[in-house]
Amino acid sequence: MSDIQGFLSEHRARFEEELKDLLRIPSISTDPAHLQDIVACAEHIAASLRTMGIEDVEVVPTPGNPIVVAQRIVDPSVPTLLVYGHYDVQPVDPVELWDSPPFEPTERDGRLYGRGTVDDKGQVHIHLKAIEARLATGAGIPVNLKLVIEGEEEIGSPNLETFLRENADRLACDAVVISDTGMLAEGMPTIAVGLRGLAYMEIFVDGPATDLHSGSYGGGVANPANALAEIIASLKDENGRITIPGFHDAVRPITDADKADMAALPFTDEDFLQETGSPSVAGEAGFTTLERLGYRPTLDVNGMLSGFTGEGAKTVLPAKAMAKVSMRLVPDQDPDAISRLFAEYVESIAPEGVTVTVRSHHGGQPWAANPESPVFGAAAAALEKAFDAEPVFMREGGSIPIVPLFQEMFDAPVVLLGFSLPGANLHAPNEWIDLATYHMGIATIANLYDEVASRGV
Amino acid sequence: MSDIQGFLSEHRARFEEELKDLLRIPSISTDPAHLQDIVACAEHIAASLRTMGIEDVEVVPTPGNPIVVAQRIVDPSVPTLLVYGHYDVQPVDPVELWDSPPFEPTERDGRLYGRGTVDDKGQVHIHLKAIEARLATGAGIPVNLKLVIEGEEEIGSPNLETFLRENADRLACDAVVISDTGMLAEGMPTIAVGLRGLAYMEIFVDGPATDLHSGSYGGGVANPANALAEIIASLKDENGRITIPGFHDAVRPITDADKADMAALPFTDEDFLQETGSPSVAGEAGFTTLERLGYRPTLDVNGMLSGFTGEGAKTVLPAKAMAKVSMRLVPDQDPDAISRLFAEYVESIAPEGVTVTVRSHHGGQPWAANPESPVFGAAAAALEKAFDAEPVFMREGGSIPIVPLFQEMFDAPVVLLGFSLPGANLHAPNEWIDLATYHMGIATIANLYDEVASRGV
Repeated sequence: MSDIQGFLSEHRARFEEELKDLLRIPSISTDPAHLQDIVACAEHIAASLRTMGIEDVEVVPTPGNPIVVAQRIVDPSVPTLLVYGHYDVQPVDPVELWDSPPFEPTERDGRLYGRGTVDDKGQVHIHLKAIEARLATGAGIPVNLKLVIEGEEEIGSPNLETFLRENADRLACDAVVISDTGMLAEGMPTIAVGLRGLAYMEIFVDGPATDLHSGSYGGGVANPANALAEIIASLKDENGRITIPGFHDAVRPITDADKADMAALPFTDEDFLQETGSPSVAGEAGFTTLERLGYRPTLDVNGMLSGFTGEGAKTVLPAKAMAKVSMRLVPDQDPDAISRLFAEYVESIAPEGVTVTVRSHHGGQPWAANPESPVFGAAAAALEKAFDAEPVFMREGGSIPIVPLFQEMFDAPVVLLGFSLPGANLHAPNEWIDLATYHMGIATIANLYDEVASRGV
Repeated sequence: MSDIQGFLSEHRARFEEELKDLLRIPSISTDPAHLQDIVACAEHIAASLRTMGIEDVEVVPTPGNPIVVAQRIVDPSVPTLLVYGHYDVQPVDPVELWDSPPFEPTERDGRLYGRGTVDDKGQVHIHLKAIEARLATGAGIPVNLKLVIEGEEEIGSPNLETFLRENADRLACDAVVISDTGMLAEGMPTIAVGLRGLAYMEIFVDGPATDLHSGSYGGGVANPANALAEIIASLKDENGRITIPGFHDAVRPITDADKADMAALPFTDEDFLQETGSPSVAGEAGFTTLERLGYRPTLDVNGMLSGFTGEGAKTVLPAKAMAKVSMRLVPDQDPDAISRLFAEYVESIAPEGVTVTVRSHHGGQPWAANPESPVFGAAAAALEKAFDAEPVFMREGGSIPIVPLFQEMFDAPVVLLGFSLPGANLHAPNEWIDLATYHMGIATIANLYDEVASRGV
C-alpha cells in the first residue's frame, strides 16, 4: 500500500485539476437544454477510464441520457464489486446566491465549491482516481470491477431500471458500492445503513380564467393561492404529523435498540442548527432530530408559486397557484401507494371555487441495510485505515431510489460509502467538497479492494 | 349639442388613433426602470391639453412621478369641477399571456386591447376629447375646469396628498369627477357610490440559512413554505371569515335598504362566473356575491413564492418564502389600524423554527358617497343622454384611495363616472376598452358640463 499512498500524495494537485475539468461540464439533467453537456460529461468519464487502462468501456444510449458502463474482470473466482454513481447534477437556481460561478470550480479554505462537487461527480471521481492509483502503481485490483455511472439520478433515474434488467447478466455482482451519501461529521467516516424513499408531487390550483383585479373581484371568487395555502396547511396537524389518511400504515416503529444507537451518536441539535442556520429545530412532536431525519417520513414544500412576485404591490387575484411537494418515506412505505393517497386526499379537500389537479413525479423506495454482511466489515476497515477513525453506521434522510433496486436485482448487499460533509449544500447554492476528505476518500476506495478480496462480501 | 355630436362622430377614428399614441407609452409606475416613460407620458398629456387651447397647463415635479395640472376658469360664479385621473399603469407580467403586445394597442371585435386602455389612460382620454369637442365646436365649457392627472396611482399615490395640501387654494373646487371605475354591464351606465379601502402587506418567512437538501434535512427543520401556507390558512376560518382579532370591529352592518338595492340590480352569479371564468362563486358564508364585493372586507394573496418553481423536480427545502397579501376594507375600517392588527397577528402565529417578518405597503381608506348632492343627478342625466339608458348606482369592490382624500380636502362631493366593462382585465393580461363605450363616455362628459351648469353641485 505504501506505493499507492505515495502515488496519491504525489498526484493530489493533478487529481484536483482533473476533478475541476469534470465539474466544469454543466450536466444538469432536469433541463433538456443541457443534453449536449450531459453527453459530453458521459464521454469525458468514459475517456478517463480508457486512459487509465480499462479496455471495456461503453457509453450506452438510453431513451434519455446515456449510461457509462465499464468492467475489468480479473478472475471469475474473486468477488465482483459493482460501483454505481451519477454524473448528472441539480439545477443551480437561485444562481445569484452562489459566491463563485457554479460551473467554475473554485477553491476556498480547503473546500472546492461548485455544482456537483459532492453530488455526485466528486464522489464518482474518488472511485476513478482510486482505480487509476491501483493500476498506475502496478498494485492491481484483486477483485472484479464493474462501473455503472448514469446521467439521470437527479430526475429519478427513469431509464436505469430497464437498462439494469436488460443487462442483468453482464452486470451480475456480489456487492454494490455507492458513494453518494455523507459523513456525520468531519473526520468521522460514515456508512449509511438506511435511506428514505421519495414521493414527489405537484399540486395545481385553478380558479378564474385569468388574473383578476383583487378589488373588483376579491371576496366573490375563490383565490387559488389562498386555496393552495389551505390545502398545504391541512396536510399536517398541530403536532407536525402528516394527516393523509393511511399515510402511516406501513411505517415501522422505532425500536429501543435503534433509539439507543442514535442516542450514542455524537450528534447535537446545537451542531445541527449551526449547520442549517435554522432558528430552532422543529418537526414532528415526540421525536428527536435524528429520529425525525432517519426514521420518520416527511412532507415538504419544495417550491410554491402564484400571482405577482416582483418588486412592488400589484393588486391581483391570481388565476392559478402551484406547489411542488415531496414526501420522504421510511420502510415499509411504498411510493406509489403514498402518491395515490396524497392525490386522493388533496383532491378531497379542494376548497370551493377552485379546481385542484395533482400530478405525481418520480418516486423511490425506502431502504434499510442488513449490516451483517462481511462487505460492511470490509468497508469499515477501509475507512478506518484511510481516516484513522472508527466509522459510524447511521441512517441518511435522503433518498437514492436505485439502492433498493440494486439490492433486489442482484441479490447483493449495497454499501453506501459517502464523503460529503454536513453543510455541503447539496441541491443548494455553494455546494462544496472538502478536499482533504476527497483525498481520504480515494485512499478508502483504494483500500476497499484489498479488504473485500480478503474478507469476502 | 348637435354640433358636438357631429364633431364626435366625425373624429371617432382620429380619437382612437390618438388614444393608441397615449397607450404606446409604457408608463409603468411600479418599476423604476420606466421613469423616462412616466415623464414622457405626463408631457404627452400636457401637450395635448395645450394643443386644444388650454393655456394654464403645468407638469409639476414631485419627489416621485410628475403630476399634470391644468385649469380653465371661465367665471368665478359658476361651479368648478376638478377632474382627477392617472396616467400610470400596472405592470404587464405575465407578459406571455397577452394575445397582442401590451404597449401596442390592437383592435379586435370592437375592443381596443392594451395596458392602460381602461385603467386609466383610456378614461383620462375620454375627458380630454370631451374638452376638445366643446372647445373645437365653439360650444365652450360653462363651468370652471381643473385637471389633476397623476402618475403614481398604481403605487398608492405617495406624493399626491402633499401636492393637494400644498396647492389647496389653486385646486379649490365644488365637485370632483373621476373616471376610473366600471359599469355593471354593457349599455348599463353606472355611478359608483362606494369603494373599498386597501391594506397591502408582505409576509417574509425565513428558515435555514440556505436552501437545504429536503432528504438530508427534511423533518428536522421547519420548512418556510409550509410555515407560510400555515400562516395564510390561519387568516380565515372555515366560513371564509377573516380571523385577525379586531379586524371586523369597525365594519358597518349591511342595512336592509342596501340589501334591497343590491337585490334589485340586474346581476346574476351566472354572469359573474362567465365574466371571471371561476368554476363556482365562493366567499364568506352568509353573503351574496354583490354583498361580498361591495360591503365585505377581503383578504387575498396577490403573490406567493418559495423554493424551486421551474420545470422538473428539485428536492429542495427552501430557505425562505414570501407572500403579498392585500385586504380590501369597507367603511369604517382604517388601513393603518388594520395593517397593525395584521402584522401583530401574523407574527403571533409564526410556527416554531422560522422567523416571520411583516411589511406594510400603501393603504387606502374605504369610502361611501352621499348620492343626494345635485351633482349626482347631473351625472346621471349626462349618462342617460349619452347611453340612452337609466344609470345604476352601486358600490365598487376596488379601491381608489384618493377618493376619500379629495372629498375631505375640498369638502366636495366626488362622482365616480366610469366606463370599463365587466371582464376588461384591469391589472391582468389583455386589458381592453370597449370602443363604443369609450365614445359614449366622451359624449357623457361633454353633456356633464351643461348638466352641472344648470343643476349645480
